[in-house]
Amino acid sequence: MDGITDAAKAPATYEDVLAAHARIKPYILRTPILTSSYFNQLTGAQLFFKCENFQKAGAFKVRGACNAVFGLTDEQAAKGVATHSSGNHGLSLSYAAGRRGIPCKVVVPRTAPEAKKAAMRGYGGEVVECEPSTSSREAVFAEVVAQTGAEFVHPYNDPRVIAGQGTCSKEMMEDLGGLDAVIAPIGGGGMVSGTCLTLSEISPTTEIYAAEPEAADDAYQSFKSGHIVAYDAPVTIADGLKVPLKENTWHFVSRYVTDVLLASEEEIVAAMKLTWERMKIVMEPSCAVPLATILKNPEIFRGKRVGVVVTGGNVDLDKLPWMTK
Amino acid sequence: MDGITDAAKAPATYEDVLAAHARIKPYILRTPILTSSYFNQLTGAQLFFKCENFQKAGAFKVRGACNAVFGLTDEQAAKGVATHSSGNHGLSLSYAAGRRGIPCKVVVPRTAPEAKKAAMRGYGGEVVECEPSTSSREAVFAEVVAQTGAEFVHPYNDPRVIAGQGTCSKEMMEDLGGLDAVIAPIGGGGMVSGTCLTLSEISPTTEIYAAEPEAADDAYQSFKSGHIVAYDAPVTIADGLKVPLKENTWHFVSRYVTDVLLASEEEIVAAMKLTWERMKIVMEPSCAVPLATILKNPEIFRGKRVGVVVTGGNVDLDKLPWMTK
Repeated sequence: MDGITDAAKAPATYEDVLAAHARIKPYILRTPILTSSYFNQLTGAQLFFKCENFQKAGAFKVRGACNAVFGLTDEQAAKGVATHSSGNHGLSLSYAAGRRGIPCKVVVPRTAPEAKKAAMRGYGGEVVECEPSTSSREAVFAEVVAQTGAEFVHPYNDPRVIAGQGTCSKEMMEDLGGLDAVIAPIGGGGMVSGTCLTLSEISPTTEIYAAEPEAADDAYQSFKSGHIVAYDAPVTIADGLKVPLKENTWHFVSRYVTDVLLASEEEIVAAMKLTWERMKIVMEPSCAVPLATILKNPEIFRGKRVGVVVTGGNVDLDKLPWMTK
Repeated sequence: MDGITDAAKAPATYEDVLAAHARIKPYILRTPILTSSYFNQLTGAQLFFKCENFQKAGAFKVRGACNAVFGLTDEQAAKGVATHSSGNHGLSLSYAAGRRGIPCKVVVPRTAPEAKKAAMRGYGGEVVECEPSTSSREAVFAEVVAQTGAEFVHPYNDPRVIAGQGTCSKEMMEDLGGLDAVIAPIGGGGMVSGTCLTLSEISPTTEIYAAEPEAADDAYQSFKSGHIVAYDAPVTIADGLKVPLKENTWHFVSRYVTDVLLASEEEIVAAMKLTWERMKIVMEPSCAVPLATILKNPEIFRGKRVGVVVTGGNVDLDKLPWMTK
């Protein structure tokens, strides 16, 4: 009985989102919301793009990372934080720790782009290299934590991170008033879970769509089958969306998501390029997935006010996907 | 005596800017102003980027075009408007005319990119092709005007256009309060003249810098010599900045500009790429020139609050300058 009750207990509540917002405000940007009459005409919807690509460290993940870092006691903080991530979470945690002035160790495959490692170091993070395998990553990470006692901040399965990501849709609702739907990309489900957490409390009639690459459709398969499906090593250009759901994000995704929508690699690249051309913003492949699914399923969104989370803008300008064709 | 008085009379006044702003507000965006702690650290200045790359039709030029189009009497408007431009002014005039529902003819060299022509048509403009020479352009344009009686709206030498561009720095001052300096790219001088017009009235102590490619330094040479210098066909990646000053823009540039600063082609491309990477915004080569000159002359801007006009974001994503090296 206890077990069942625990399983149904929310990993984080809207009170955690409110506390997170107060805590992180000095360290994050209130990102602008852009509109595009071109995309409104093309889709028949009213789209509101929440530009987290302009966020500190270039992505929404800094919200969750800051909430985790600035929520630590001084005693915890003194030992620093640690994570494994070659992407935006590693950057974001480095930024957050740098702002608090505490150590941050990020375990990164030695094959990760040098530019990413340099950026983490630039924010004050310490890059600890591992071999590009799960076993090496886990071994190296365990050693780092054993040596330092650093607090592990998971990229998305951490309730503090989910509550932090929930501040994004809180800002959207404050700035825009009512929305009929919100759509965000889904990888591990941190942003979508935060969106569920906030909207289920303050706007329960707003539909929540998760957008995913067909080539890494584990969240779609999970949603349709009712249990977590995980892939070993999916291949997609949307490299932020390869990771699987975990229990804390599944809690929210399974309860509050309206539907998971899919887009092909070609559709993702086309939506990405079109956004750069028409909206003049640099977005990563991962965050072109929502627009790709809207263009593919206009009937779902027509006539609706839709918030679109543009999750990040960290992209290698020397390797743009439409240049390599 | 009359001649001297006329020569000194301002082509447009701040009252014209106020009227323009009221007139064009329904048709333009109030563009956001972005900041970047990265660029602030790099330069030692506080930079405020006014993102006219997010503007309707992708550039500030829609301000002047809308002011000209919506200031026409119904009788004038019925005959339509015309201009010669293969760039942002042609797009902007097409947009403005389309919003008013009047004809717009744009004389464009047949060698201009098809994408640009298609975009003009998409806004409702009619593209009239000429040969890529000044004589052909002038002949074809004269024919268009003779046939239609259309109102000529010059890309920058038109007082209505200058007053329209002046609304941009008006918005910056309203949103930011005091600024120590404003910097904008200079080609024909429309934006810089509008900036001079507004700031000389509402913030005369704010310095005004014009940024220009070394490879097309006609405004610099004009400023230093005290009379208009024009080049025949300068070659620069900043293709919006090739045109020379004319009498109405020279009026403002010669009186109110603090200095003209230069950047090399390499510096322009580097600043452009760095902005895409760090600010996640798509800007044209032309509007990377101000940042390139700030990076080159940090001592001028250190410790100052500086408004930077990001003039436009219309760029060919298949031909990015750092990809062709």
